[in-house]
Amino acid sequence: MKVYYAPDTRAVRTVWLLNELGLDYELERFKLGEKAMRSPDYLAVNPNGRVPTLDDGEVRMSESTAIAQYLVARYGDGSLGRAPDSPEFPAYLQWLHYAEGMIMPPINAYVVETILLPPERRSETHADRALRLLNRTLAPVEARLEGRDYLLDSFSAADTITGHACIMSEKFGVDFSDKPNLAAYNERLLARPALKAAWDA
Amino acid sequence: MKVYYAPDTRAVRTVWLLNELGLDYELERFKLGEKAMRSPDYLAVNPNGRVPTLDDGEVRMSESTAIAQYLVARYGDGSLGRAPDSPEFPAYLQWLHYAEGMIMPPINAYVVETILLPPERRSETHADRALRLLNRTLAPVEARLEGRDYLLDSFSAADTITGHACIMSEKFGVDFSDKPNLAAYNERLLARPALKAAWDA
Repeated sequence: MKVYYAPDTRAVRTVWLLNELGLDYELERFKLGEKAMRSPDYLAVNPNGRVPTLDDGEVRMSESTAIAQYLVARYGDGSLGRAPDSPEFPAYLQWLHYAEGMIMPPINAYVVETILLPPERRSETHADRALRLLNRTLAPVEARLEGRDYLLDSFSAADTITGHACIMSEKFGVDFSDKPNLAAYNERLLARPALKAAWDA
Repeated sequence: MKVYYAPDTRAVRTVWLLNELGLDYELERFKLGEKAMRSPDYLAVNPNGRVPTLDDGEVRMSESTAIAQYLVARYGDGSLGRAPDSPEFPAYLQWLHYAEGMIMPPINAYVVETILLPPERRSETHADRALRLLNRTLAPVEARLEGRDYLLDSFSAADTITGHACIMSEKFGVDFSDKPNLAAYNERLLARPALKAAWDA
């Protein structure tokens, strides 16, 4: 398998999960926002010029949550996913999708307004609004983690997706002082060797 | 089952799929943006004040793509999903997730800048940027639909999610004159009785 990767992007999720699953892969490395991600060669791989992209033989996928479900179904032993007959199946799906549905849109907006746009085109109003919305979308995660170490009863692929979004939120400056469960959760995730290795890949 | 619904929202996806599956449900209706969606009663159901929320006995879910996977797995006969051993499984996941990963973030931004914010706080610059990005994220869908009636070889739950995002894109004014496959696809979807009924629910 091959992963097109850049640090501080959703590609970390894919490498993290591959490490948790103990699978072999090679990386093609980019830096976030560098021109090579918009080269004709890479646009032929991923027409949106985003990472991750996963190549697994003939299979090519680029949505990190889709990739997580694919890897768990095809290569997992069942422990990182939840099967349809599991009582945790609805919560597994809900938290697997929560990141892209709720947390990432304000993160995307914040990154655009603080990193991707040239300084003269950035809007502080929009950056602040994104950060406030991001803060609100984390409240249900904080509540969910009351009395829990992970989003489900044990670590799952949902943590590699929504957990990653929680870590990005803290990194981008969301106030975590009123989110003790999330602060402890992020620390717990960052202590996992599979994530450490993905972060430094 | 009960669906918390508002027209012109992701709740249409849920009702559409329920109709395709021939399942019974009741609706609790809101109007998009109305105060009742921020009432303490509804915030107790969905802390983000969004629709859809699905209640199925003890199960409560609110991410429309998660709900689609749940309904297909628990109530489908297999025809609207793709099992892990299907050759279409990777494409099924990719297109199921493409809407929230790529198409909806610019739609969200556009709706904020043109509908949700009070007029004096709207930014034409941001609305235009969202529309340009939205246009670009549709290009891979247009390419995918070359020679295909649906995102996979036959209609699937992925069409109720990414197809709905394509219909919303056209509704919000994306130029479809250079997207013949998408224009025909939207028409094809809108002709389905299950979607017609969801739209007018």
